[in-house]
Amino acid sequence: MFKAKIDSTVFRECIESLTAIVDEGKFRLTESGLKLRAVDPANVAMVSFELQRDAFDLFQFAVKESGSEAETEPESKKEIEIGMDFVKFLAILGIGGRDEVELELDENGQKLFTRMGSLAYTISLLDPSSLRKEPKVPELEFPVQVIIETEVFRRTIRAAERIGDHIVLGVDGEVFYMETEGEMDKLRLGLRKDQLILLTPGTVHSLYSLDFIAAMSKGMSHVENITLNLGKDYPLRLDFEVAEGKGKVSYLLAPRIENE
Amino acid sequence: MFKAKIDSTVFRECIESLTAIVDEGKFRLTESGLKLRAVDPANVAMVSFELQRDAFDLFQFAVKESGSEAETEPESKKEIEIGMDFVKFLAILGIGGRDEVELELDENGQKLFTRMGSLAYTISLLDPSSLRKEPKVPELEFPVQVIIETEVFRRTIRAAERIGDHIVLGVDGEVFYMETEGEMDKLRLGLRKDQLILLTPGTVHSLYSLDFIAAMSKGMSHVENITLNLGKDYPLRLDFEVAEGKGKVSYLLAPRIENE
Amino acid sequence: MFKAKIDSTVFRECIESLTAIVDEGKFRLTESGLKLRAVDPANVAMVSFELQRDAFDLFQFAVKESGSEAETEPESKKEIEIGMDFVKFLAILGIGGRDEVELELDENGQKLFTRMGSLAYTISLLDPSSLRKEPKVPELEFPVQVIIETEVFRRTIRAAERIGDHIVLGVDGEVFYMETEGEMDKLRLGLRKDQLILLTPGTVHSLYSLDFIAAMSKGMSHVENITLNLGKDYPLRLDFEVAEGKGKVSYLLAPRIENE
Repeated sequence: MFKAKIDSTVFRECIESLTAIVDEGKFRLTESGLKLRAVDPANVAMVSFELQRDAFDLFQFAVKESGSEAETEPESKKEIEIGMDFVKFLAILGIGGRDEVELELDENGQKLFTRMGSLAYTISLLDPSSLRKEPKVPELEFPVQVIIETEVFRRTIRAAERIGDHIVLGVDGEVFYMETEGEMDKLRLGLRKDQLILLTPGTVHSLYSLDFIAAMSKGMSHVENITLNLGKDYPLRLDFEVAEGKGKVSYLLAPRIENE
Repeated sequence: MFKAKIDSTVFRECIESLTAIVDEGKFRLTESGLKLRAVDPANVAMVSFELQRDAFDLFQFAVKESGSEAETEPESKKEIEIGMDFVKFLAILGIGGRDEVELELDENGQKLFTRMGSLAYTISLLDPSSLRKEPKVPELEFPVQVIIETEVFRRTIRAAERIGDHIVLGVDGEVFYMETEGEMDKLRLGLRKDQLILLTPGTVHSLYSLDFIAAMSKGMSHVENITLNLGKDYPLRLDFEVAEGKGKVSYLLAPRIENE
Repeated sequence: MFKAKIDSTVFRECIESLTAIVDEGKFRLTESGLKLRAVDPANVAMVSFELQRDAFDLFQFAVKESGSEAETEPESKKEIEIGMDFVKFLAILGIGGRDEVELELDENGQKLFTRMGSLAYTISLLDPSSLRKEPKVPELEFPVQVIIETEVFRRTIRAAERIGDHIVLGVDGEVFYMETEGEMDKLRLGLRKDQLILLTPGTVHSLYSLDFIAAMSKGMSHVENITLNLGKDYPLRLDFEVAEGKGKVSYLLAPRIENE
């Protein structure tokens, strides 16, 4: 049993942060809220998502007693998996306007009733077993952390896309930089510590595919600040909060090898 | 002889209500104003349009004395038919801005002079005999009437288009509903009597093609309320006023047979 | 050596006035500012552009002493030619936001460093010898001059494009007119002297290709007034100011022969 109410803008922003990486995926519903972990089809980027139950205006959750059958899997007792087409769901949420979203899972867990004001949607869910397995999050240690205004980051990514296919994110002493080279032109954003919200000084840089960073930057359009966790030729972990801090999104992106 | 002046916004909304159904058609000009009745090319939807002479700031109309010839058709004495490409005319009106529209028919009824401020257009008219005949309006009696805010209706139609191809409009007791089912998902808008401007309680519903209703809903973008006249497996007649009540538009749409 | 700073909005408008006619071209840098003259690929329209050094917030210019070599061309002493892809440059300027633009030519004149706030671009320049030669401006005398609000001119051009392929610009006594005839329809804008900023009375008219006038009208979107210099079956010279009068743009367009 799952029944919930949530602010439509908040919920739309959550789903938007997922569609930046994946079209569909499995939510894991538990007593404490909603979780998701998924990789993009090319296995290059990953999204980890978490929304606490107190981000909801109403959150009712219970797992059916599955009787005394021997084959009962222990973890299924405490969580429900629901498979969703996030792209379609986002389109539906977009139409509902500003009305609060009410969600209700049907008894068999195959349909999600969604109500926004006088509009009611019944959405067929995807079979969780037909979806790709949840990825493991690798253990990573990032020597450097940068907190930057989302708008500055996004604008630079848009500019970089006109120049080249890859981008270097790096820290050089007390300067954070983003650098792209095309065949003809070169773009560099350099921000000193005082132009950032936070900077761990250091000397690191890694090269990433612009396509993926551009996709990610679409998932954070309503977020004020993002945290970049960086290393030397190392994955990027890009963190931000949603739902007034009651939700967390992390994107993880594998680095590209520089041809040097 | 026909000469008239009219507010450009009002006139644009009138023509827009026609282009929702037909690209071209015949206006019948008489002493009392402007009329049109036309069916869409697929013969599924019909538009009836009427604009009273007092919707105009100036309205001069006279039919030439055609002498004493024996073959004079009586009705031609009192009306002039003008064939128009409404889509092109709407584009021209859109460019003129907010200036009052002045219309003047040339002597042979083959051109329409249109003036908006310093801009003057001369539009070649279509030969009325080359256009499809005016349809007869079938006699219909509608057991149920619903008056609804246009914006609520239009938003639901937009949402429904993402789900399926058809839509049920119905009244169930004191609730008006719109319902669409796709292969996977289902959408339902339900509005109680107190959420509507008017509702005749009853039990009726009919299925309609969403394509046509979506087209219609483009013709009423500036209208506050629309009246839906409904029956059981019956045509829909959708009425609204234009020109501050001095004009009337009715769309008539044949129902689809439900596969049940 | 060339180093300059300029308001980004002003500079964007300058480059926009060029891209209306050409995609790429040669700037001639001198002590007194920036100049360009270029024809469109079809050789029908020409743009002359001039931006005074005092339109810049900083303007440093010096030509390298090229030693005592015999083959030194005299004009190269006092000016530097730089070849640019204006379309790409405009895109880059568009991304920089409202920050002041800093320009700096590299020593070999092959790259232009462009800085806007924290963003730095390095743009490869085009080899000036690979670009078309600068056209000569024909000597012309225009009997008639009209100064008109840009918005009125542009709106009429947009309207005319829906009707036909050519447009007549003319003056008849104290009326300036623009007239387009299509197969079916005709459009005429007529403005009396008191509806214009300036009009030299006269009797002239010429026919021009709408494609080119429409392209030009995209280059003047931020300009309040434009000056039309007209004659009888004569080229059109369309002048306007940029950078608060510290820059000048002239478009020259060859007339079409009327089929009469």
